[in-house]
Amino acid sequence: MSCWGGSSRPTSRPDLAYSDWSGVAHGCTRKLGMKICGFLQKNNNVDDKSRIVRFFNDQQPRSILTRDNERDPRFRRTETDFSNLYARDLLPAKNGEEYTMQFLLEVVDILTNYVRKTFDRSTKVLDFHHPHQLLEGMEGFSLELCDQPESLEQILVDCRDTLKYGVRTGHPRFFNQLSSGLDIIGLAGEWLTSTANTNMFTYEIAPVFVLMEQLTLKKMREIIGWPNGEGDGIFSPGGAISNMYSVMVARYKHYPEVKIKGMTAAPRLVLFTSEHSHYSIKKASAVLGFGTENLIFTSDFYCACYLVKWFCCVSAVQGFVPVFVNATAGSTVYGAFDPINEIADICEKYSMWLHVDGAWGGGLLMSRKHRHKLNGIERANSVTWNPHKMMGVPLQCSAILVREKGLLQGCNSMCAGYLFQPDKQYDVTYDTGDKAIQCGRHVDIFKFWLMWKSKGTIGFEKHIDRCLELSEYLYHKIKNREGYEMVFEGKPQHTNVCFWYIPPSLRLLPDGEEKRQRLHRVAPKIKAMMMECGTTMVGYQPQGDKVNFFRMVISNPAVTRSDIDFLIDEIERLGQDL
Amino acid sequence: MSCWGGSSRPTSRPDLAYSDWSGVAHGCTRKLGMKICGFLQKNNNVDDKSRIVRFFNDQQPRSILTRDNERDPRFRRTETDFSNLYARDLLPAKNGEEYTMQFLLEVVDILTNYVRKTFDRSTKVLDFHHPHQLLEGMEGFSLELCDQPESLEQILVDCRDTLKYGVRTGHPRFFNQLSSGLDIIGLAGEWLTSTANTNMFTYEIAPVFVLMEQLTLKKMREIIGWPNGEGDGIFSPGGAISNMYSVMVARYKHYPEVKIKGMTAAPRLVLFTSEHSHYSIKKASAVLGFGTENLIFTSDFYCACYLVKWFCCVSAVQGFVPVFVNATAGSTVYGAFDPINEIADICEKYSMWLHVDGAWGGGLLMSRKHRHKLNGIERANSVTWNPHKMMGVPLQCSAILVREKGLLQGCNSMCAGYLFQPDKQYDVTYDTGDKAIQCGRHVDIFKFWLMWKSKGTIGFEKHIDRCLELSEYLYHKIKNREGYEMVFEGKPQHTNVCFWYIPPSLRLLPDGEEKRQRLHRVAPKIKAMMMECGTTMVGYQPQGDKVNFFRMVISNPAVTRSDIDFLIDEIERLGQDL
Repeated sequence: MSCWGGSSRPTSRPDLAYSDWSGVAHGCTRKLGMKICGFLQKNNNVDDKSRIVRFFNDQQPRSILTRDNERDPRFRRTETDFSNLYARDLLPAKNGEEYTMQFLLEVVDILTNYVRKTFDRSTKVLDFHHPHQLLEGMEGFSLELCDQPESLEQILVDCRDTLKYGVRTGHPRFFNQLSSGLDIIGLAGEWLTSTANTNMFTYEIAPVFVLMEQLTLKKMREIIGWPNGEGDGIFSPGGAISNMYSVMVARYKHYPEVKIKGMTAAPRLVLFTSEHSHYSIKKASAVLGFGTENLIFTSDFYCACYLVKWFCCVSAVQGFVPVFVNATAGSTVYGAFDPINEIADICEKYSMWLHVDGAWGGGLLMSRKHRHKLNGIERANSVTWNPHKMMGVPLQCSAILVREKGLLQGCNSMCAGYLFQPDKQYDVTYDTGDKAIQCGRHVDIFKFWLMWKSKGTIGFEKHIDRCLELSEYLYHKIKNREGYEMVFEGKPQHTNVCFWYIPPSLRLLPDGEEKRQRLHRVAPKIKAMMMECGTTMVGYQPQGDKVNFFRMVISNPAVTRSDIDFLIDEIERLGQDL
Repeated sequence: MSCWGGSSRPTSRPDLAYSDWSGVAHGCTRKLGMKICGFLQKNNNVDDKSRIVRFFNDQQPRSILTRDNERDPRFRRTETDFSNLYARDLLPAKNGEEYTMQFLLEVVDILTNYVRKTFDRSTKVLDFHHPHQLLEGMEGFSLELCDQPESLEQILVDCRDTLKYGVRTGHPRFFNQLSSGLDIIGLAGEWLTSTANTNMFTYEIAPVFVLMEQLTLKKMREIIGWPNGEGDGIFSPGGAISNMYSVMVARYKHYPEVKIKGMTAAPRLVLFTSEHSHYSIKKASAVLGFGTENLIFTSDFYCACYLVKWFCCVSAVQGFVPVFVNATAGSTVYGAFDPINEIADICEKYSMWLHVDGAWGGGLLMSRKHRHKLNGIERANSVTWNPHKMMGVPLQCSAILVREKGLLQGCNSMCAGYLFQPDKQYDVTYDTGDKAIQCGRHVDIFKFWLMWKSKGTIGFEKHIDRCLELSEYLYHKIKNREGYEMVFEGKPQHTNVCFWYIPPSLRLLPDGEEKRQRLHRVAPKIKAMMMECGTTMVGYQPQGDKVNFFRMVISNPAVTRSDIDFLIDEIERLGQDL
């Protein structure tokens, strides 16, 4: 059997103090043949070896976990030689407690250094390597798994290197995804969650987390505007699954017999969504057995009205039954908001389920200034809302909220006897696991609950207002700037600012296919250079007949105007000669 | 809007040094009117206030983060007053670095104390409270969310209390679930994962994790026995979703048009599974639109053969098409293994997809002694294997492995332009996110990869062999013991030992309905007392016509024979007067 072969690679690395500053410049010049990244002022990894934890003492940072022999002799001997220690020496091993604490503190030291440097703008956002480079193995860091154990020293090296070759999604200049930032309270919440290492299916083994989930979901429903926060909901592994829940629950509401008899028991069900909606609605229609051709994409609201009416009229004749409309609150690329009230009117008229996909835009409900963009959301039958996006909660944290109580349970319950015993000593209505399509379910609530406690509702509001202000700043900065063209008219509704950067060499070209083709290649080239240099990251994509453009989004509280300025400078620096 | 109401509850707690030892005895006597839990020797929370981090120095544990003023004056001032600090004072706040480090170290101190005490048998497994008690709020601990922020001091109290009122799933006497234990390397891996806070959809933002996933999945496929580890796979949010993937992929293989046209494009598809299989197969049949009535439960292998043949014969006439068989490798309650080779013969004969649900039993593949129980698994088309169960990886970590390459991608891909741009600078075949039904996907791989590195394949083997030895010890201990009756004949195949404890008062009763009814109430009563006392936790359930019985499972490396002895003593202590 292949897994019992020999292991021969070295398990320790002689020198951790390599500098990757030289690698940066080298990478940039070697790989791209241009641009020395001289604006990076500091070595990215220079602190990795010193492993200090600083304490706030006399205004002077101080190392108390140092291995420096000049320190108080009491602390000299705290150095543990991990090269002869293995996982088997840690708890539950006999006398493993001290080694366990030492090891965990070493890990924490690596992590706190990482956190510190993530917020330091002189640190690179990433240290890019191609897949084949990482697969071949970097110095002292191999991804291969072996039969024999590696020493804890090597494990610590592996931890450092995993972070080193990764991407700092919390960096103030990481703008690549809708989820960015590194909230310290959320991080602490995740560390605690991992330490508690439990599962959401029953109150029995997650009493506090189950209650936190219930209270938080109720709060979210109140904010949506459902009377007294009544209704139901669950945290799911991401917005795509939350959206899938909405389609499932809508189907169950209209055709409960599908649960038992399958889709053949229902007529041909039709779903509607806008062409700018998230692709997870299409995924759900494939997964759940509707078929993607029964999901109708509408180009705008009037088109939607027309199509819904058409389908409703022909349904008696051709067997089509429109059941579900998805309204997007904050589209992925443009950050656009569908007119929920108008869509709700149609849904009410034709008895269709209204789902609001607020995975990205739901956070705006926390802002008195911006929540009007979701007016009508209280009329939705279900809502997806991802606190891990606009609210800065660590990944993952996504809620599906349902206005009518009991549907989630009815739709999904299978009453497994080994989990959901009716004869427990406590009120078993708190065993909420049977509402889920999952059995075991990760605890996604604690970090969010803890952040809410620590910021208050007003803290989330401030964060959201600030991010929207910053995107407005970017919009005003580039809308009339030479070399920029906006992808859509008017101020962005969310933090999404979509634009083309047009290098000088293209500016005088006549409009036409050649210019389009060349412009299409600009964003990928600039993005590639950004990544090789490690200075910043921002997304790009084509959309419909529009060639590749940048999509800037802001959800990280660490971002300032200077970072927006930096991004624009960087695009121009890297793109001016294209 | 209701979320903008006032906040009036106190945000700090005067005294953290409460003892919950008195609460234990009180809880036991008050709630159950019996049994003083005098075997608990130590206060559960006595260390919570001292918050020490011990260093291995001259064989004497030493506190270096203490606030004790007798210590070296340099460290006296490390005390930070968190009562006037808020989340807004932490990074990215200006000058927030030191407070951030201080706060994170305080949290780590809480967590390391929790870890230490989890492995200490004198600590309670849980401090049980009813939902209404926790909802009403314990002293200084309220679950309610407010508009205004709470101080970091209160946040630290909240962290402590969340752990205090939770369940120690890593405790050597927690036997309640298939997932138990607290692996220190896995824990460190989770802490790092949270700190990296990224997402698995593209190589772009998770280069190292994406490669780790690929290599680890390949290793798992090699261990399954697929040639050269070829095939495909993905980590999913739990075994239920992994099993759902298998049904989806089987449907796509046989009827790819369902993706576009929906279930109505296929004939009436029939699925097979044993009646002891996990309920997620039934959930999948409901979710995916097959309908639960088209999932056929077979009582044993011969029944399965007969039914499959019958369905295959009548399919031409009645439109039934059997497509999928689930073979369970380690059933949830009994730990039983279906005969995979025999089932594979049928599947090959009738061109059906063979899925092996090894969520629980897959871990045995790592043991040369026990892997024969999964003989034939290399003939499966897909396999679910949850390292978070028998291999002790922290929650969640579940893999779906598929023998034929390309099916996952074909089945699920939607080619979202904003994520999966074809014109990136690296090899985009590493952007594996489009294979998933999720969009964002949590990084579940790192902890597992790190554990594998640190233990080696042989470390997992030792762990598994040891857990099976312990369950054999339990089996031999009770099989002829007075007052016990085994639920199924013979030695358990996995670590599941299922038994009734028959209190003295029932032993002389004649067999019959009254005895059954009374016996049915025994396990829930003992379990309730265990939980109120907090001494241990073990699962129970009825199964078919069998009244409630205990299901003992072992997957925690901290368990020793003495813990098994303790469980039996405890059952007898609590159950003797029933």
